[in-house]
Amino acid sequence: MQFPKNIQNLINDLSELPTVGPKTAQRYVFYLLKQPKEFLAKLSGDVANLKKDLKICQSCLSISESLVCKICADRNRDRGTICVVATQPEMLAIESGKRYNGLYFLLGRNLRPQEGIDVDKTNIAALIKRIRNGEIKEIILALSPTIEGETTSLYLAKILKEEKVKITRLARGLAMGSDIEYADEMTINNALKNRSEV
Amino acid sequence: MQFPKNIQNLINDLSELPTVGPKTAQRYVFYLLKQPKEFLAKLSGDVANLKKDLKICQSCLSISESLVCKICADRNRDRGTICVVATQPEMLAIESGKRYNGLYFLLGRNLRPQEGIDVDKTNIAALIKRIRNGEIKEIILALSPTIEGETTSLYLAKILKEEKVKITRLARGLAMGSDIEYADEMTINNALKNRSEV
Repeated sequence: MQFPKNIQNLINDLSELPTVGPKTAQRYVFYLLKQPKEFLAKLSGDVANLKKDLKICQSCLSISESLVCKICADRNRDRGTICVVATQPEMLAIESGKRYNGLYFLLGRNLRPQEGIDVDKTNIAALIKRIRNGEIKEIILALSPTIEGETTSLYLAKILKEEKVKITRLARGLAMGSDIEYADEMTINNALKNRSEV
Repeated sequence: MQFPKNIQNLINDLSELPTVGPKTAQRYVFYLLKQPKEFLAKLSGDVANLKKDLKICQSCLSISESLVCKICADRNRDRGTICVVATQPEMLAIESGKRYNGLYFLLGRNLRPQEGIDVDKTNIAALIKRIRNGEIKEIILALSPTIEGETTSLYLAKILKEEKVKITRLARGLAMGSDIEYADEMTINNALKNRSEV
């Protein structure tokens, strides 16, 4: 059996989304079929307008509504500290903690030399340029503790040594809510090595 | 931090999809941001056109491009057998087996009396009407072996007893690829009860 063409077209489109296969796409489409026309019109419009008027912040390279994003424009933030993240959702994750008061810089992606994603395909050159413009005292490397994130952190730590900035990285240890029984060796060893007095 | 409005709007829309929370919606939106404008235009158009020209098949009540769907219009199919399913994706699952050659009837949903979803909110009345129009020899109840599906099957088996049709239901047993060690009691007992000679 074939679905009607309209339905199959949208299933095909939604199957392109990350982690979404044809079965999940089908589930989404049958959900959408039950929604009022107004919702479909809104969704259609929001998809069409997604990239409209979006800019790249000249300072941190995040997607923004203005040429300088709200965070970079905020004079109450510590302009001497830059937190280097790979992607915008990671920047949001750090903002959601509500403790960090410095600025950000987006690399765009982590290095994956095996897949041909080298320095040129990230914003590393722009980061160095920004550091050399002065004012920066500390660079916090906030890259995920994955192979790609570690590769990127190591590379940055090495090349940034020549700049006159303090370089730190996020602490490694047990994640809140995790179970020591199921923690991997690296996490256990990091937690032991970085243990703190109580 | 807030995302730009366009991004947040689409995250909100996509969070409405079943099993999709804000984090998954965010992932979808950042994926879409990387796609060419042509893809966004196509997706937007396909969403807008989803319900356009869709009809309900007068015979099986599935969503169709014509007043009688391709399956119901196919004169090569066995018109004396009706497979009763709850939803269209379930109908597709049975069609994907490529063995069933009869017709279908969609209930729309299973009964959930606790949630106020009773007979009036399904197509059961239309099913009885269709059976009474004659021609039907066998009704196959193909409802999922969940509490709702079983409730619906039991109800249908009871009320259809008065009609002159044979009523069957899909076999219960071990699913292919499943592991006996992890099969639940009901499945084990069904598999034992319905065992076949080899």
